[in-house]
Amino acid sequence: MKIARFFDGQRTRLGQVDILRGVVTPLALSNDDTAAFIEARLAHPGAATATAGEAVALDKIKLLAPLVPHRNIICVGKNYRAHAKEFSGSGFEAGAVKGQEIDEFPAVFSKPPSTVIADGETVDLHPTATQAVDYEAELAVIIGQGGRDIAAADAMKHVFGYTIVNDVTARDRQKNHKQWFLGKALDTFCPMGPWIVTADEIDGANLDITCHVNGELRQQASTRDLIFDIPTLIATISAGLALKPGDVIATGTPAGVGIGFTPPRFLKADDEVVIEVGGIGRLSNRFA
Amino acid sequence: MKIARFFDGQRTRLGQVDILRGVVTPLALSNDDTAAFIEARLAHPGAATATAGEAVALDKIKLLAPLVPHRNIICVGKNYRAHAKEFSGSGFEAGAVKGQEIDEFPAVFSKPPSTVIADGETVDLHPTATQAVDYEAELAVIIGQGGRDIAAADAMKHVFGYTIVNDVTARDRQKNHKQWFLGKALDTFCPMGPWIVTADEIDGANLDITCHVNGELRQQASTRDLIFDIPTLIATISAGLALKPGDVIATGTPAGVGIGFTPPRFLKADDEVVIEVGGIGRLSNRFA
Repeated sequence: MKIARFFDGQRTRLGQVDILRGVVTPLALSNDDTAAFIEARLAHPGAATATAGEAVALDKIKLLAPLVPHRNIICVGKNYRAHAKEFSGSGFEAGAVKGQEIDEFPAVFSKPPSTVIADGETVDLHPTATQAVDYEAELAVIIGQGGRDIAAADAMKHVFGYTIVNDVTARDRQKNHKQWFLGKALDTFCPMGPWIVTADEIDGANLDITCHVNGELRQQASTRDLIFDIPTLIATISAGLALKPGDVIATGTPAGVGIGFTPPRFLKADDEVVIEVGGIGRLSNRFA
Repeated sequence: MKIARFFDGQRTRLGQVDILRGVVTPLALSNDDTAAFIEARLAHPGAATATAGEAVALDKIKLLAPLVPHRNIICVGKNYRAHAKEFSGSGFEAGAVKGQEIDEFPAVFSKPPSTVIADGETVDLHPTATQAVDYEAELAVIIGQGGRDIAAADAMKHVFGYTIVNDVTARDRQKNHKQWFLGKALDTFCPMGPWIVTADEIDGANLDITCHVNGELRQQASTRDLIFDIPTLIATISAGLALKPGDVIATGTPAGVGIGFTPPRFLKADDEVVIEVGGIGRLSNRFA
């Protein structure tokens, strides 16, 4: 099932997407809180997914980010080998040590809910705050059943579904402040969408990711190549921290980001970044 | 004015504390959302601070954390010189370089709302996740009027008030994962309180902080000694990130944390940590 959040001209709703027909059918819910929907679906699958009203053509509605997180998105860094090497060698990793590019434990940081925008919306380059805006194509995991101290062997039972994020990063702030939060947290720096695909439809451990900038292929990888796989991430993050329905874990980006080039190729006004993940869809955003 | 959040035996309320009389008087509000109260007070100061009902003795109610954050708390690290040196020399800072203990830019990370507990509540030692729990006494700034790209010269106009936090930290996770989030984000790892003191009552730039563990003085400092002062922190954090009413900025801890000792003195079951900040009050929590 593909769950979209959208504005139908009158109100914000959740709906079920049918890609072949190019339509979305509203769900019979009293609000558009995706986390609440996830909880309801865990408790009463049939009732939560009941539809209400007519299917509407996707080109007649405005897609919104599929989820407004209730707390910061949990993000993983340096989780593909080739990217860990390009980042460590770029000069933009504080404290990088040659020969120690691959970390023993995952690097985890957060992005506030205020970073989240939808497919088709514009990312603000914030020229007074940064001169070094970069893209990061990523698969994001949406948590279903919550839990703390989840064993890796049980972790996939806690995955509700998947979406795409662009973990947009101000490389100068990421480097200068050493802790990455301020380089990751700028308003509009987390395009998310186009929708959530439930875990029964796709295998998160085997999805192809591409990222194009102005039509040029920059990133191409498979989630098979994650250093820390999804069960390991869920086990590591949930140690002492209870995950909740609707939490978002961005799993890291593969090689090919702007700082992987010499000189770095930072984003500029009117650039368009398009991320595709097999089985999910396409997340496209212009920068300005 | 001192704003407390409390449970009166029937419901959760906000109230105005009178320390001399030892009472709290409920505010005439429809809910207990401190961020909404802050917004209302900015718009209609008189209406928002109207009281309703009788004053109640503080020992007859249960104090709650004065604020349930709507997104992660924004925290600053290494913001007192002596602490920056003790942390860098402790072996628990990933990538520490001798002679470069003081950072040029503030280190900023986050703690989820799920870390927040009240004065008097118990911090979970999470023995399956960490063996190295440490305390960090801190002044926290509560944002009033929101804003993005706030100039340092205007920053104090955006401060609603102050409270105390204990930025409890799992030192092993802080070191192993390099990014500090996983060492800072465990459930119950942010005692906050006892209440919020509004900015007209105290000068955040000149407050004394002490921290006692089981009655032994461990930390003693003044916010005069912050490396990055409150206006600088607000200007730095709000660059590209719109601050909102009710956002919390924890300003960093002074020297004297457990890893400042050789060998480190980590917290253990039944330890009690008491933090006092002049003009605010006392935040006391047991660990178990």
